[in-house]
Amino acid sequence: RFVGETDGHLVLIDQTKLPVDLVHIECHDVETVWEAIKMLRVRGAPAIGIAAGYGVVVGLQTAANQAADQFEARFHEVVEYLAGSRPTAVNLFWALDRLKATYAAEKEAGKSPAEIHQALLAEARFIHEDDRKVCRSIGRHGAELIQPGYGILTHCNAGGLATADYGTALAVMFTCHDAGKNIHVYVDETRPLLQGSRLTAWELVQRDIPATLICDNMAAQVMKEGRVNAVITGADRIAANGDSANKIGTYGVALLAKAHGIPFYIAAPISTFDLSLPTGDGIPIEQRDPVEIIHGMGKQTAPDNMQVYNPAFDVTPAELIAGIITEKGVISPVTPENIAQTIAG
Amino acid sequence: RFVGETDGHLVLIDQTKLPVDLVHIECHDVETVWEAIKMLRVRGAPAIGIAAGYGVVVGLQTAANQAADQFEARFHEVVEYLAGSRPTAVNLFWALDRLKATYAAEKEAGKSPAEIHQALLAEARFIHEDDRKVCRSIGRHGAELIQPGYGILTHCNAGGLATADYGTALAVMFTCHDAGKNIHVYVDETRPLLQGSRLTAWELVQRDIPATLICDNMAAQVMKEGRVNAVITGADRIAANGDSANKIGTYGVALLAKAHGIPFYIAAPISTFDLSLPTGDGIPIEQRDPVEIIHGMGKQTAPDNMQVYNPAFDVTPAELIAGIITEKGVISPVTPENIAQTIAG
Repeated sequence: RFVGETDGHLVLIDQTKLPVDLVHIECHDVETVWEAIKMLRVRGAPAIGIAAGYGVVVGLQTAANQAADQFEARFHEVVEYLAGSRPTAVNLFWALDRLKATYAAEKEAGKSPAEIHQALLAEARFIHEDDRKVCRSIGRHGAELIQPGYGILTHCNAGGLATADYGTALAVMFTCHDAGKNIHVYVDETRPLLQGSRLTAWELVQRDIPATLICDNMAAQVMKEGRVNAVITGADRIAANGDSANKIGTYGVALLAKAHGIPFYIAAPISTFDLSLPTGDGIPIEQRDPVEIIHGMGKQTAPDNMQVYNPAFDVTPAELIAGIITEKGVISPVTPENIAQTIAG
Repeated sequence: RFVGETDGHLVLIDQTKLPVDLVHIECHDVETVWEAIKMLRVRGAPAIGIAAGYGVVVGLQTAANQAADQFEARFHEVVEYLAGSRPTAVNLFWALDRLKATYAAEKEAGKSPAEIHQALLAEARFIHEDDRKVCRSIGRHGAELIQPGYGILTHCNAGGLATADYGTALAVMFTCHDAGKNIHVYVDETRPLLQGSRLTAWELVQRDIPATLICDNMAAQVMKEGRVNAVITGADRIAANGDSANKIGTYGVALLAKAHGIPFYIAAPISTFDLSLPTGDGIPIEQRDPVEIIHGMGKQTAPDNMQVYNPAFDVTPAELIAGIITEKGVISPVTPENIAQTIAG
């Protein structure tokens, strides 16, 4: 959240301190924003984009009273600096590109540094507000799929911490809870980095939503006991045919849901679709550091010389997905035609 | 392993120190054995039974030169004391009952305390040796199912640490490796207590068997990539129809194996069958302490007031099991008739 006007500051929750401590970081300079993105204190694609937008505004404060060319030099310095905080985050560049376009348009229109600074803040606020609307809309559309009393299982964190506000998968649960639908959420802890137990569990506790934490390998048993009526997760990237890349373990949960006759849904904004990919086969799977598994939680839990396989995500094929919940409605059945139609519509 | 004669001592590996340190506990008194069982320094049904048998022998050393009635009083004291170390461990009572029967028979035959002490050590050794033979036999029968170059996935620890020697599921892998079959083992870390990463990974590294550690939620992805040709796990209890209770997560792995057309096997001694149970429906599922999930590895990973579901095991239905590997051969297909025939045969 951004406090004040162009001379204001950005306030972030330090996600690395959750769930034990709720620590707010007050970013009065761009270095603090850079460090927060770099060190994953702020994470989640939309949240990184929003932080970067406000980060540019904060970074320009030292040049606010300078001449136009000095102001512009500082703008490019700040943008390049923030771009280096997490070079693999697509949303980071998307947000910075939007601010660059704003800068160019304002300069073209002959605006002063103070006016351009104002316009950049307005653009950062627009990015923020737009994401908030998308989350709320995903929540509304998804809630129509949920009956009162449903048990809903989720994996990883697709919640408010990752976005402007309500999240994507969690937006559906927040909306149902606000509407008094009496749902119960089952949260996969999501090894190795435990985004489920650290972040999703924390968000649900904060909102007093009835929820139960389980280890990833307990999902099948919880389904067998009839406690789960729907599974909803987020997605990192969706191909033109609906194949969806998401946190490692999502594909397994989708298979288990199918085996128990439980519908499996993806909740994600339209911006998640990558129509340049016909199917999910083309998505390369990032391998992460074995240390995350061997020294997972501050304690060594496997022999040092043990070989480890640590894929960051997996791809759930479209045929396992009952529907994709977007801000423009629910795509179901998941076919290339329905996807193209919803995106265009 | 037991060193020496009736005045000898028991040497155990402290499993709680693995995989970081290999610490041996030398048990020169029964209190040390009791503490090792109580604190899970020795775990695994057969291993607990074996430790208890030798524990009785060690506990009688202080009464070895006493009169017959004092020796007998001490025997009952030691047996009762050890029975309290882990009151839910079936094998503990099974082993102590065998030593009680030995005591009664020797006393009936008019033997002296020293002779009875000797007979009890022989019985403890017999229990130990018998388990070793069972493990080796399971390994031989299971190895016939494995082709050279197979990838084999396992869950939890059904290895040498849990038994006299070779384990059950791991016995198959040890036998294949010894025969030069060039296998590769995938090890589920097995949350919450990480028996896979702490114990199974350690045993495989000790024997130089090519192996890869994964988080439980990565099993589906590893199967999808075609790396797994068979799944083999142990079992805690098997019903008359073949339904098998084992560490939580086993049922999910069996479903994932089915979805990928991979055979799922159970490896367990005949003593694991409980023919008083017609199916697995009658097996109550023990709930364990939420602390194991929230404060899993020395660090808090979920909010303190989070509700947790922590079932210790699940039941895999017989129809998901391609075969049960026992010391009397492989039961396949898994039907009540084939089970009854193998047990009788």
